[in-house]
Amino acid sequence: MKAKVTGLEGVVAADTEIGHVNGQEGELVYRGYWAKDLAVRHSFEEVAYLLWYGKLPGARELDDFQSRLAQERRLTPELRRLLEAMPADAPVMSALISAAAAMNREEEGPPSVEQAVRLTAMLPVAIAYRYRRANGLGWPEDAGAAGEASADREGHVAHYLRLLFGRPAAEAHVRAMNAYMILAMEHGLNASTFAGRVVASTGSDMFSAVAASIGAMKGPLHGGAPSGVIRLLEEIGTEDRAESYMRKLLERGERLMGFGHRVYKTLDPRAEALREVAAALAGSDPWLDLARHTEQTAIRLLAEYKPGRRLFTNVEFYAAAVMRAVQMPPELFTPTFTAARVVGWTAHVLEQSRNNRIFRPESVYVGPMPGKD
Amino acid sequence: MKAKVTGLEGVVAADTEIGHVNGQEGELVYRGYWAKDLAVRHSFEEVAYLLWYGKLPGARELDDFQSRLAQERRLTPELRRLLEAMPADAPVMSALISAAAAMNREEEGPPSVEQAVRLTAMLPVAIAYRYRRANGLGWPEDAGAAGEASADREGHVAHYLRLLFGRPAAEAHVRAMNAYMILAMEHGLNASTFAGRVVASTGSDMFSAVAASIGAMKGPLHGGAPSGVIRLLEEIGTEDRAESYMRKLLERGERLMGFGHRVYKTLDPRAEALREVAAALAGSDPWLDLARHTEQTAIRLLAEYKPGRRLFTNVEFYAAAVMRAVQMPPELFTPTFTAARVVGWTAHVLEQSRNNRIFRPESVYVGPMPGKD
Repeated sequence: MKAKVTGLEGVVAADTEIGHVNGQEGELVYRGYWAKDLAVRHSFEEVAYLLWYGKLPGARELDDFQSRLAQERRLTPELRRLLEAMPADAPVMSALISAAAAMNREEEGPPSVEQAVRLTAMLPVAIAYRYRRANGLGWPEDAGAAGEASADREGHVAHYLRLLFGRPAAEAHVRAMNAYMILAMEHGLNASTFAGRVVASTGSDMFSAVAASIGAMKGPLHGGAPSGVIRLLEEIGTEDRAESYMRKLLERGERLMGFGHRVYKTLDPRAEALREVAAALAGSDPWLDLARHTEQTAIRLLAEYKPGRRLFTNVEFYAAAVMRAVQMPPELFTPTFTAARVVGWTAHVLEQSRNNRIFRPESVYVGPMPGKD
Repeated sequence: MKAKVTGLEGVVAADTEIGHVNGQEGELVYRGYWAKDLAVRHSFEEVAYLLWYGKLPGARELDDFQSRLAQERRLTPELRRLLEAMPADAPVMSALISAAAAMNREEEGPPSVEQAVRLTAMLPVAIAYRYRRANGLGWPEDAGAAGEASADREGHVAHYLRLLFGRPAAEAHVRAMNAYMILAMEHGLNASTFAGRVVASTGSDMFSAVAASIGAMKGPLHGGAPSGVIRLLEEIGTEDRAESYMRKLLERGERLMGFGHRVYKTLDPRAEALREVAAALAGSDPWLDLARHTEQTAIRLLAEYKPGRRLFTNVEFYAAAVMRAVQMPPELFTPTFTAARVVGWTAHVLEQSRNNRIFRPESVYVGPMPGKD
């Protein structure tokens, strides 16, 4: 009898040209580029283009691409009707699964970049619409109206924040969120990406595959929110309280949220990139400043209290700081992660469908057998 | 570098007490019982109970269970609103993904049999509603009204057929469909069941997991319809034409649809069970009779034209005969398969959530690396 590989740990299920995670070396690569460089230097749109097409866009390509994305970034009557038909107490993530599946049509072709663009455009609109409706807020009149000039020139991340909050976000917040969303786009064969590839491997459509990925992301073991770090930052409150507060935690034997990672045995390159963005934005947002100060202090204290443990800052630490800075409501952390990761999911579905073999592992029956008759 | 296992073939991803597929011996076991015996002797409800609870119900348990299922078998205002919000040209399977996800609520607990009952009750209603609406048919007034006496006493399969066609189905058709749907409930770690377990492994909910499974079933490499066999039966038309027609096909070097299977190297036990049901119903439906005659003739001709090839009747052969007999519209073959397989999916989600480890296989990056800086 063959042995079960619990959680498929260590089993290679796919070759990929999309992304590379090396936890030992602290490396994260997207299509031949360091993810941390992309996050600091490029826009959400440029990196989405890179993941889908395999190269960064030229100026003209980027211009066309931004227009395509902006064109699709609409609360269509179909999307509005569907979101309004969802019960008010359905989780936002469940509404996103429904909305993604409902974009499919009998006449759709095989997985395409055009479909990936539509899904990526839809998610922030659906999240913002559910959020504003649940909170009795109106819908920004001009929000993403097709061809509407200001929306057209607006970046994808700025657009998302404006839809959510009903007013343009501060430039520093757009830059920080842009970096976060780029760093959240892709991370190898995690459970959500894998679920999408399994669905795509049956010859099913892009929308069904993304619906499956959203369902996997919804699980707290995967798309869990960095609420522990946010609580830490909120309880610290001001820079002068950071050291005394964390000393108290460490002396009580508690862990510091935001340090240590299952995969990365060195500094998580995503944390490194977000720290760099926070440093570049120094003085423009108190939460980003507090996060940098808290991190420096935490590293010093961890070396003192837990020498040799090599606990490095993980992505959640700075992700939490960015979420707190932009005042993202906690119930939208996972949906926002989803709005970024959809770029990676769709890139993986495209890759799967180009060179496909159906995923059909085995199970071992450990129940009773009938008597033979 | 580790080698990729294409399609995870031969990799054991889970232990299971639910079902056992042995293609070499032609065995299919559900929780200690031969699936073929269950299909011939038991009802859809009894076997669903078995897969969820691990034992067949006693008379009293069955009675309670049937009432619970019948109670949930309603076109609720929520379901109707959601299905009406789906664009008319969305595939039925996409509507089912949306509907499954939309059943989730913020307050839902972890995966439960109660949720499995609700999903299993919902799917036939949603399929029938989309079908009747797309074809301009009214909705049977009393269809599955909660607590409505006649619907309560009606079996699950009879109810499904009545909703679809707007009148009670013939007893022979209910029996044949009952057997087909039992045999379609479970088949190890196929792609749809696996997709559901991957989603459940993140700690996500039952509804999201089933939405992923439906998406995988939608793929033609998995949930493909037995349309080739139906065409064969229709072109044969009457028993006296079976031999001459199939001789012509074989002499032209064409294959006979419905014979040979990737897994079963002997008679598919599902085909065996459906043949037995067809034999028991001899004289009650011309398509079931034609199928039996055609199969006998085909086996004789295959031995003559392809000696030593050991091509056995597969499940699609008799599944097609059942579908043709009940006049199931071809676009509802895969949704009907879904309405049966949901029992197995939900049993697997329950099993996964009881003893969980997140599925997180690896990928190997085969793209370019950046220059180190």
